[in-house]
Amino acid sequence: KVIWTVLVTILGYASSLPVGEDALCTAEELAKYRIIFTGKWSQTAFPKQYPLYRPPAQWSSLLGVTHSSDYSMWKKNEYASNGVRDFAEKGEAWALMKEIEEAGEKIQSVHGIFSAPAISSGTGQTSTELEVHPRHPLVSFVVRIVPSPDWFVGIDSLNLCEGDHWMDEVTVDLFPYDAGTDSGFTFSSPNFATIPQDTVTEITCSSPSHPANSFYYPKLKILPPIAQVTMVKLKKSQLGLSAPFINLPAKNNEIIDTVS
Amino acid sequence: KVIWTVLVTILGYASSLPVGEDALCTAEELAKYRIIFTGKWSQTAFPKQYPLYRPPAQWSSLLGVTHSSDYSMWKKNEYASNGVRDFAEKGEAWALMKEIEEAGEKIQSVHGIFSAPAISSGTGQTSTELEVHPRHPLVSFVVRIVPSPDWFVGIDSLNLCEGDHWMDEVTVDLFPYDAGTDSGFTFSSPNFATIPQDTVTEITCSSPSHPANSFYYPKLKILPPIAQVTMVKLKKSQLGLSAPFINLPAKNNEIIDTVS
Repeated sequence: KVIWTVLVTILGYASSLPVGEDALCTAEELAKYRIIFTGKWSQTAFPKQYPLYRPPAQWSSLLGVTHSSDYSMWKKNEYASNGVRDFAEKGEAWALMKEIEEAGEKIQSVHGIFSAPAISSGTGQTSTELEVHPRHPLVSFVVRIVPSPDWFVGIDSLNLCEGDHWMDEVTVDLFPYDAGTDSGFTFSSPNFATIPQDTVTEITCSSPSHPANSFYYPKLKILPPIAQVTMVKLKKSQLGLSAPFINLPAKNNEIIDTVS
Repeated sequence: KVIWTVLVTILGYASSLPVGEDALCTAEELAKYRIIFTGKWSQTAFPKQYPLYRPPAQWSSLLGVTHSSDYSMWKKNEYASNGVRDFAEKGEAWALMKEIEEAGEKIQSVHGIFSAPAISSGTGQTSTELEVHPRHPLVSFVVRIVPSPDWFVGIDSLNLCEGDHWMDEVTVDLFPYDAGTDSGFTFSSPNFATIPQDTVTEITCSSPSHPANSFYYPKLKILPPIAQVTMVKLKKSQLGLSAPFINLPAKNNEIIDTVS
């Protein structure tokens, strides 16, 4: 009995040592999710300076990662990495992919990377699948707002594990962030590097508090969500050869107000 | 002995019945590949009308599928599907993803879908992983040329299976195709639907034979490749948690001639 107590103590100590919050995940080995990103950036919801031409309002590719708490893709009020800067400013994914790869190699903090195609209008959808693991139950991703100086939407370290099981479905409203690397105020501002670099900040209807800001709506209390993401756990029967990626929803025409 | 012969005959007949060329694949269950797409669309190689502004030369997201010969994403000299048309004209992936999904559900001709992030310049790289299966050993993908009327590069039904093994590495030069749905002649032509729709055709230095064509170089015999794709089989040891996507190459600076 004494031996067991000691063992449990040692194991308990060891397992709580290097890993963080995700150490508590005791769910089954792997879970797959369909992730569906919906752009809600319509001219109706965001009339101010809505980009109609060259380019019209649209969304970049989605780039995401499943990971442990030892990795962070981006975090509010912290400095963006060079990879996140390249992605937020230009939609260039390579440096960010390399950063993720290195985190996977060096500290094994990454399970996998995923990406979904760009959306050619402000309101539309894109989708892909992702896989999580008890040691890597967190999801992060970024999607660049196009056009914009360095603005993006995304999720930082959302935990899909709830103790001993995986969540069935999660939906999150998304709001714009400024990567802190380009000082442009409006969607079509010319490039103008922020030196020294600023931290990642949320853009609200009152901050930055300047009438030139494209999201400055002094009469609103909060911005409407500019996008939304849903992650749905795939059933075992939905995996494998016969149905590699079912559950792709019909295009939600309600939210589509076409901008020609 | 007779029984065996009959059995072999029946099995041989049955297995060669509904599936096509890929029936011969007897390689091990699954293989994973890293796919690396390299844009070679530089102003040096393609000086004519090279797009510098709004938008500058770049590549859309890559959208691909692994499948059997019962599915075709696109084919030279055949009509593009609505999904391929949307993708080639606007980079809009949703309809094409739905088409692939339906082919996977109805005739089980699809193993999986994959996508890689867009590239924000004419010369750059993007990458993702894909998985093939003996019944679904073919790879197809498309990447839209941006800006362009309805031009793309891609691969149609490349077989990664060689009898009883999977190829270790394949590299293919890519040349531009016209989806046959928009009659623009130049990279920045305004939209002008081709009615009736034309078939998918390769664009060469002499075809369409008109000096206004952006790829018309009468002094050349063939165009230089505008892009290249490499698929590298991942070793078993490179799969799994510890190394989720190694082998991402260092950015090849030789081919990058920056266009600001």
